[in-house]
Amino acid sequence: MEKFEVHILGCGSALPTTRHFPTSQVVNIREKLFMIDCGEGAQMQLRRSRLKFSRLSHIFISHLHGDHCFGLIGLISTFALLGRTATLHIYAHPELERLMRPWLDFFCHGIDFDVEFHAIDTQKAEVIYEDRSVTVSTIPLKHRVPCCGFLFAEKRTPDHIIREMVDFYQVPVYELNRIKNGGDYITPEGELIPHNRLTTPSEPPCRYAYCSDTTYLPENIPLLQGVDLLFHEATFGNDNEARARETYHTTARQAATLARETQAKQLLIGHFSARYEDESILLKEAKEIFPHTLLAKENMCINIKNIPTD
Amino acid sequence: MEKFEVHILGCGSALPTTRHFPTSQVVNIREKLFMIDCGEGAQMQLRRSRLKFSRLSHIFISHLHGDHCFGLIGLISTFALLGRTATLHIYAHPELERLMRPWLDFFCHGIDFDVEFHAIDTQKAEVIYEDRSVTVSTIPLKHRVPCCGFLFAEKRTPDHIIREMVDFYQVPVYELNRIKNGGDYITPEGELIPHNRLTTPSEPPCRYAYCSDTTYLPENIPLLQGVDLLFHEATFGNDNEARARETYHTTARQAATLARETQAKQLLIGHFSARYEDESILLKEAKEIFPHTLLAKENMCINIKNIPTD
Repeated sequence: MEKFEVHILGCGSALPTTRHFPTSQVVNIREKLFMIDCGEGAQMQLRRSRLKFSRLSHIFISHLHGDHCFGLIGLISTFALLGRTATLHIYAHPELERLMRPWLDFFCHGIDFDVEFHAIDTQKAEVIYEDRSVTVSTIPLKHRVPCCGFLFAEKRTPDHIIREMVDFYQVPVYELNRIKNGGDYITPEGELIPHNRLTTPSEPPCRYAYCSDTTYLPENIPLLQGVDLLFHEATFGNDNEARARETYHTTARQAATLARETQAKQLLIGHFSARYEDESILLKEAKEIFPHTLLAKENMCINIKNIPTD
Repeated sequence: MEKFEVHILGCGSALPTTRHFPTSQVVNIREKLFMIDCGEGAQMQLRRSRLKFSRLSHIFISHLHGDHCFGLIGLISTFALLGRTATLHIYAHPELERLMRPWLDFFCHGIDFDVEFHAIDTQKAEVIYEDRSVTVSTIPLKHRVPCCGFLFAEKRTPDHIIREMVDFYQVPVYELNRIKNGGDYITPEGELIPHNRLTTPSEPPCRYAYCSDTTYLPENIPLLQGVDLLFHEATFGNDNEARARETYHTTARQAATLARETQAKQLLIGHFSARYEDESILLKEAKEIFPHTLLAKENMCINIKNIPTD
C-alpha cells in the first residue's frame, strides 16, 4: 500500500506553552514530504520525527501570522548546513517573499540551492501543485489576514493485473500498462475483454484537508465532501464562542459540525488556545457532534490509508 | 543575599538536535532579567524556565548567525500578545535593526511597546548598559562575522550596619546611608569612628562572562581575570582542533586553558557541535586542564553567588 501519512510537528496556537509547539505538519505521500505551515521550532520537531530533511522540497504556508511561519528561516538555514542542493519551493501569500528575501540574502548568503516562492491566491480553490502521485489545492478560508487551507488529493494508482486472466487471454506485455490504467483488451479475434475482468481495482485514492486558521465556513462543505481526514482548527470551546467569532477562529463544536456535514472519515482538531490546559473538554464537545474525532498532539502520526471506518 | 543566576535556555550550536536548543541564556540579577542571544525556541524555553516575561527588557545579541538570533521575532510577538507596554532594548550589531524592522512592521504592527535597538561595536571592550545593580560590557571576540561576548559585573551593595555600634555611638539616622556606602562617622565631640567599626562588609560583587562564538583568545585574559563564572563555547573536542580553527571556534581544552589563565572560579562550557552525541568527552578534556568545569544543559540554573571554591 502506498504511504499517505500526516505528522503533527506542532498544534498549539500563537502563545507558546510548555505543552505545544506552534503549527506545523508534514504530509508524507509515498516518501515525498510536504510541509504545511512552519511555526518556530518546526525544524527541531522535524528532526525528532526522524523524517528525512532531504525528502522535503515543498512547503505550504496558510497565512502570514508568526505562529505559522517563524520557523522557516531556521529550517532553510539548516538545509544549507546540511548541504542541500535541490530547489526548495514555498507556496504562500506573495508578501512572504518580500519579507524573507533580505533575511535569506543575509543569513543564507551563498547557499547551494534556490528558494523559489510561489504566490498563492488564498481566496480561490485551485490546484497549486501537482505531480504523478498527488495534487495540492487551496481551500479558501476566512481569518484576520488572507488565509487558505490545503487539500492533498492522492491520484489513483493503476489497477492490479490478474496474472491468470492475462495469461489466459495471452495479452501481450506492451498492453499491460494501458490495461492497468483503465483500458480494455481486444483479442486478435476482435473479442473485447473488459478491464474489470483482467484487473482488481487499486485502493481508492485518499484525501487530506487542512483548515487553519479560520471562522466556521459551511460554504467549504462541497469542496471537502468525503475527505478521509479533516484537520480543522478548534482554537476554542463552547465557553469562548464569542471570542472565536471576534478573532476569526473556530470552536471544537463548529469543527465537528463541518466534519459531520462533509462526511469526513475522521476529524483531527488542533491549534488549541493556550488557555486550555486540559484539551479533553474540546475533544468532548467535538465528539458530541462527530464521534470520529481525535485531538492533535505533537509527534503524532496518522496513517490516512488506515482510518477506521466503523 | 542578592540574586545573580544564569539560566541556560539552549546550548547547542547551529545544527538542531533532539538534545539541544540553539543558544540562549537568561541572567537574573536581583529579579531583573537579561537575555543573552536568542536562538530559535528561546521563548518556549523561557516559558519552561518559569521566569517572568515581564521582567525581561534587555537582550544582548553576540553576533548575527541564525542560531543566536532567530528566536527574537517570535519572542517579541509573544511580548505583544501578552500585552507588554515597556520598551524592549536590544543590543546588537547594527545590521540586526535593518533586518528586523520590516518584520516588526509586518508581524508586530500596532504593538503597545517600543523595540529600541542599540548598536554595539563588537571590537571594543566598553560598558554598554548600566543600572544601580550591574554593568554590562562587551568582550571583543573573533568569529567569522563581527562578534562579542558580554561581561555582567554586579555593583557592590552597601555594607551592613552593626546595630549595636550605631546605637553605642548614637549615630543619627540621616548619617546611616553615607556610612553604609563607605563613610566614617565623626561624633559631635570630633572623634572619628572608622567605617569598619560600624559595619560588616557586604558580599563581594560577582562577575559573569559569556564568550561565544570565538576562536581561543588569550588576549582577553586580563579582562576576564577572576570572574566567578566563565561561560565559554567549546564547540569541538581535541579530535577537531583543526576544524575549530578553520571555523573560528574553540575546543574544550582551549576553553579550559582560558579559565585556568583567568583564574575563573568556575567554567561552564556549551555551544556543542551536533557531532558529539556524548558530550562527556568534552567535559573530560576540559577538566584535565581546569577541574572546576561544568557541561551546560538546557534548563540548568547556576547560582553565581554560590560557586563552590574548594
